[in-house]
Amino acid sequence: MPWAGRDARVSRLRPQPPEDLPTREDLLLAAAYVLDAQYNRNVPFETSPQAIRLYYFYKHWTTQVATYFFICVDLALALFEEPALFPLPFLATSIAEILCLTAFFGRLIHFAKITPQMVFWKDTKNICIMVTIVLTLIDLIIYGSLESINVRSVRWSRALRPVFLINFPESRQIRRAFRSLWNTLPDILYVFLLFMFSVLMFSLMALKLFGDRGLKTAEGSPYFENILEIAFELYVLVTTANSPDIMMPAYDFNWWYSLYFIIYIIINTYIFMSVFLAVVYNNYRKHLKNEIRKLAYLKHHKMIAAFNVLKVKVGTEFVVEEAHWRQLAQVVAPDMSSAHLELLLRISDEGQKGHVDKMNFLQLPDLLNIQVVTINIKRHPLEAWMPRVYQSSASLLVQKMVRHRIFVWIFDVIILINAIFIALDEKKPLISYAEWLFLSLYIIEILLKLYTYEPRAYFEKNQFWNWFDTLIIIAALVATVANATIQSAREYNSQQILDIVLILRILRLLRVIVSIWRFRVIVTTLINIRPVMLTFGGLVFVVYYVFAIVGMEVFHGKVRFFNLNFTAPDALVCGNPALQGSAFARGRYCKNNFNDLASAFTVLMELTVVNQWHVLANGFALVTHQAAKLYFILFHIVVVILIVNIFIAFALEAFFVAYSLEKSEVETAIEKKIQELGVGIQEEELQDGKLTDHVDTKDHGLHGDDGDNKRKALKGLYCRIASKKYRTVDTLLQQMFESEIAPEDEGPSLDEILNFSPSDICPKNPNFENSA
Amino acid sequence: MPWAGRDARVSRLRPQPPEDLPTREDLLLAAAYVLDAQYNRNVPFETSPQAIRLYYFYKHWTTQVATYFFICVDLALALFEEPALFPLPFLATSIAEILCLTAFFGRLIHFAKITPQMVFWKDTKNICIMVTIVLTLIDLIIYGSLESINVRSVRWSRALRPVFLINFPESRQIRRAFRSLWNTLPDILYVFLLFMFSVLMFSLMALKLFGDRGLKTAEGSPYFENILEIAFELYVLVTTANSPDIMMPAYDFNWWYSLYFIIYIIINTYIFMSVFLAVVYNNYRKHLKNEIRKLAYLKHHKMIAAFNVLKVKVGTEFVVEEAHWRQLAQVVAPDMSSAHLELLLRISDEGQKGHVDKMNFLQLPDLLNIQVVTINIKRHPLEAWMPRVYQSSASLLVQKMVRHRIFVWIFDVIILINAIFIALDEKKPLISYAEWLFLSLYIIEILLKLYTYEPRAYFEKNQFWNWFDTLIIIAALVATVANATIQSAREYNSQQILDIVLILRILRLLRVIVSIWRFRVIVTTLINIRPVMLTFGGLVFVVYYVFAIVGMEVFHGKVRFFNLNFTAPDALVCGNPALQGSAFARGRYCKNNFNDLASAFTVLMELTVVNQWHVLANGFALVTHQAAKLYFILFHIVVVILIVNIFIAFALEAFFVAYSLEKSEVETAIEKKIQELGVGIQEEELQDGKLTDHVDTKDHGLHGDDGDNKRKALKGLYCRIASKKYRTVDTLLQQMFESEIAPEDEGPSLDEILNFSPSDICPKNPNFENSA
Repeated sequence: MPWAGRDARVSRLRPQPPEDLPTREDLLLAAAYVLDAQYNRNVPFETSPQAIRLYYFYKHWTTQVATYFFICVDLALALFEEPALFPLPFLATSIAEILCLTAFFGRLIHFAKITPQMVFWKDTKNICIMVTIVLTLIDLIIYGSLESINVRSVRWSRALRPVFLINFPESRQIRRAFRSLWNTLPDILYVFLLFMFSVLMFSLMALKLFGDRGLKTAEGSPYFENILEIAFELYVLVTTANSPDIMMPAYDFNWWYSLYFIIYIIINTYIFMSVFLAVVYNNYRKHLKNEIRKLAYLKHHKMIAAFNVLKVKVGTEFVVEEAHWRQLAQVVAPDMSSAHLELLLRISDEGQKGHVDKMNFLQLPDLLNIQVVTINIKRHPLEAWMPRVYQSSASLLVQKMVRHRIFVWIFDVIILINAIFIALDEKKPLISYAEWLFLSLYIIEILLKLYTYEPRAYFEKNQFWNWFDTLIIIAALVATVANATIQSAREYNSQQILDIVLILRILRLLRVIVSIWRFRVIVTTLINIRPVMLTFGGLVFVVYYVFAIVGMEVFHGKVRFFNLNFTAPDALVCGNPALQGSAFARGRYCKNNFNDLASAFTVLMELTVVNQWHVLANGFALVTHQAAKLYFILFHIVVVILIVNIFIAFALEAFFVAYSLEKSEVETAIEKKIQELGVGIQEEELQDGKLTDHVDTKDHGLHGDDGDNKRKALKGLYCRIASKKYRTVDTLLQQMFESEIAPEDEGPSLDEILNFSPSDICPKNPNFENSA
Repeated sequence: MPWAGRDARVSRLRPQPPEDLPTREDLLLAAAYVLDAQYNRNVPFETSPQAIRLYYFYKHWTTQVATYFFICVDLALALFEEPALFPLPFLATSIAEILCLTAFFGRLIHFAKITPQMVFWKDTKNICIMVTIVLTLIDLIIYGSLESINVRSVRWSRALRPVFLINFPESRQIRRAFRSLWNTLPDILYVFLLFMFSVLMFSLMALKLFGDRGLKTAEGSPYFENILEIAFELYVLVTTANSPDIMMPAYDFNWWYSLYFIIYIIINTYIFMSVFLAVVYNNYRKHLKNEIRKLAYLKHHKMIAAFNVLKVKVGTEFVVEEAHWRQLAQVVAPDMSSAHLELLLRISDEGQKGHVDKMNFLQLPDLLNIQVVTINIKRHPLEAWMPRVYQSSASLLVQKMVRHRIFVWIFDVIILINAIFIALDEKKPLISYAEWLFLSLYIIEILLKLYTYEPRAYFEKNQFWNWFDTLIIIAALVATVANATIQSAREYNSQQILDIVLILRILRLLRVIVSIWRFRVIVTTLINIRPVMLTFGGLVFVVYYVFAIVGMEVFHGKVRFFNLNFTAPDALVCGNPALQGSAFARGRYCKNNFNDLASAFTVLMELTVVNQWHVLANGFALVTHQAAKLYFILFHIVVVILIVNIFIAFALEAFFVAYSLEKSEVETAIEKKIQELGVGIQEEELQDGKLTDHVDTKDHGLHGDDGDNKRKALKGLYCRIASKKYRTVDTLLQQMFESEIAPEDEGPSLDEILNFSPSDICPKNPNFENSA
């Protein structure tokens, strides 16, 4: 009964008189629940005082960063092991690996200390990590002992390394993506089988139709004479990589045969690939909704648990005292400003009754998740310093000019001219001088803006586009100066630095995006769906890593790249006579090899892009064995059919959410409350630099209603939602489901919640008591 | 006031006593409204008796088929005009074209006769057709007169021919797809501009990074030295068609440069292409919902109009007499069986009060849209003919065997063995004999099934899979017999017939799909979304046709294909020295030309598949001018970026609807009513051959309730919904919105409905009176 301790304390708490302050332990326990709810963790923990302290240490950023550091080191080891980009002796890498394993093991022990035993051992994540640690140790020992007697064996456990990345509780998103993938498999399997059946049917037809005709491909090799080769070629045609070459011999022979290929492409490329996308997408949506629903209910449960720890009875209902609430908030968010805290309390304790009721208490994580920016409306420093000059008519004219649309347009034209100058040959002195002119114009622009707008407001944390603009110009300044320095020194010894300088100079053209509103919207949307993209990046990285390790073991050294100046006859066949006359050698693909991790990743990237993947597959099949094609087909199935479709599903869903944010301007209940309190300021108004005007109007409008009381308490404090960025797909979906859960409704039991999806791990505890 | 006549009559009708039968004209008018509502037409018409008769003639299948025939002839003319697949003199094609134009004009006049003038002239469809007719005539005259003085000019009006296909009222779906496309354009434009900006930024970077290095491509041509060429190459890279070749020279030079290409591909290929898909999809959904909502409201309006024509007052409410309802149904669906009519009346007149109330009357189009199959449960003919033999224990054993699962499995194994035999060389006599064995086994299987199941039930109209199975075997039988005949005659003079025979023999393997349930589900889903695919096919056809005509005018004769046996030196460069050494000639792409309509369509298909499209573009640019690349880029933008994404949006939405049908088994209200009346039979039960058992149970279950009355009236009649096929995306969405419109609610005014989307054309009539 891991929860028995807490339950006992909850019942102990209930009869307490309202004036009793909760103990420090109770506060920490409640805060832990709130933190879990805020960050959607579902790690249950022991409730002994020591466990709570360990819990806080476990969640501390230092231990988390340390864990990620060791995961990175472990994964990076593949760069230093044979076949290595930067070779290190086996002893060094194995010591580093053992260090990492020790760290992982320590982290696991730490986790075990704060988790009830029963829960810990039921969690497949923990079992996975332990098994992987043991397997890696066994592999290290075997490889080490074989190495000592000079027998080279395979370091197979390296392919298991991403297990650590996936299975630590912090990588929830990647794990969820993998679960989506896994849950999609049964549904996609039948479609895949039907698809393979269709490919085989067409192969058989091709064999019968074209096999006996003695046709030749453009390279002169026999055309469609072997059923296995036909099946491979037709599979490649599904990926469109050998279209139209594969069709040409038959088409040249008889016009009607093109119909065979057209029907094949319509059925297998267009229809089946759409079915794959539809199945993956459908499953992804279904699964995502289920997970989010579960998270919403779990959060609700945790907040009720926190409420039960702190509640006291006032009148007929249980509430949380304002003092306790304050203490809790300070523990949960230690670096929150007191003004911010005051605002949250105002929102939570609407009637200013001195306590927070249950419904408002449950909203706490959402309140904490909203980045509220406290704005101190200040005068421009120049205005404070020399008001006469700043308010003079000349100065006001300048300010008016800068705020005008034409000012923006003029600089757009300047950027355009600059782009043309960059495209022209920079060797001419005129153009090189023009560089300095453009740069000074840009700097003048920034200075004028800083003169017009309040600098602290302009460079506020969430003014993304102002930062973007300024950073690009500073980078360009640095680049141009560096370029001039290097050129005057006439020493072009560092190619990389020069390249970076070049790129930075071109990047300044990105400023066009800032001034075209529709472009800014698109880019903001893209930035908003960044978390989704990052999750997807993690997923791809894991799959790439496993395939890269396997590929390096199988193919390394088979294909070699010779420096371009090296004129050995082997250079043209990549050091392997088997490639003589192959499309691989003809395409000069020698550098596409598996001789180190970086090269392997590049090859896998090319395979993901799909085009010419059959040339790579055939090349590596020639230098090893025909069965090597299976590696490439498997990669195609996993990455292109499954993962790219998951990516499209991810991206589409994210875009739709982002669009609906952009267009319908959903205002959540919390934002409304801030507005009701009269302390909210719209972001747009701020950007236009009309802040002071707005505040005046606000003041005026508020005098009418009973807001004076509130106003007094919050005098001088203006808040606004930092941006809409916090509303990611997850948050939005979660809010959607949360609005469906009534605050008094306890929701389904924990058991039911956990049965939403059998693959998620959480404590099963029939004694979980909801004593509201 | 085009509606004045009807409105006057409606008010005339109202005070009539209930026993008055409506006139024939009123019936026809009401039936016309119902037909419009049933098929979602929104063509308003004059209400004079003559106009109604013309309306029925206009909607008659003969005139519709005639219209489509002339459209086909008009479009097919491109096959016979220079550059022609089957050349005909200009006089012949021009006479045919004038005939077609006359037919179109006649159809338009016919439409004008039944449409109020004001409405007719506001409809852009009609204007479009007229303008196109005039332009075509002008073009014909100019071309004809220039031809007579031997000057060859351009028949530019040929590209306008698809206008007739799109703009006739019957092609609503294609028009809607075009409208979706059109409405998407403004949103996609900004994304496209940002995308082009990104491509140009990267081009500039590539020029600066790689331009001065003196690198060479694998073919030895200069690498990235001209900004326009770089932009084209990078645009091609977005389509992945030149990956990884375009990267290799830079990658060989320095490992780090691969990062440039990887970032480029991630941003431009993956992210931007996803944004395009998301924008198109988002717009498609938005627009579709709007259109469907409009249709639902219009349908509602029309049904109220029909109700108003026929209504009589009974007690306090207006209703339609049963006799009138019957007459109406007979006019609307003349070939409906009386049993079916009786069922619909039972559903509409629930209380058997002798009249149909408004709410039920409005449902009429839905009732008519449901294909109800009347099942006469009969004994097996053999049982009737010789009951003793059929019911003997041996016969029953056979029937039991055939119904058993193992029977299906045995034949699956046989098909598998057959597939292996087909793959083997058929020249061996053993295998050729085995063919006959397999064929006789299949025929025995069919005969056994017909022995076990009732043949009329087995070959019922909607037993798709039984038909599929039988047709394949009959085709295989024909094929094998034909093959044997041809082989014994030893005259292989018709290659096509032999090829068809070969394909038919292989197609019989498709029978595997029938016996694997999951495969059947997938194929059924695909068949269900057929209307969506066909619409899309129409869209693609129109775009292809226009591009093909333009391509034929620009590129015809520039590239020629020489027969393979012809050994002229020109054959290798496609008869054009400009192609010497080009990838186009090296790939033997000579047959990819625009020398006739069929070839042009094949080339466009290859361009749609994308791979190697840059080779084709470069080839045609070499034989004409660099600007020719614009044709190919435009085709890529229109077809791959817009239309293929529309297709994916179409397909995804259709799949989701089909999935939700498959999984959640939505039963509409109408189906429930059929079930309530106790005359419904589930499709699945029928397929298992357990029909009689089921009916017995049903009988038994019904004795308890008050269904006896109903049962008597419908004795011997069992109905079932033919299949779920009728529930297409449209139908489902429409039902969704219809359920939101209360029957008593008149919905928004016609004006409001029409303002849902400004692009749809319909009469604006403020006098439209809803006198309920």
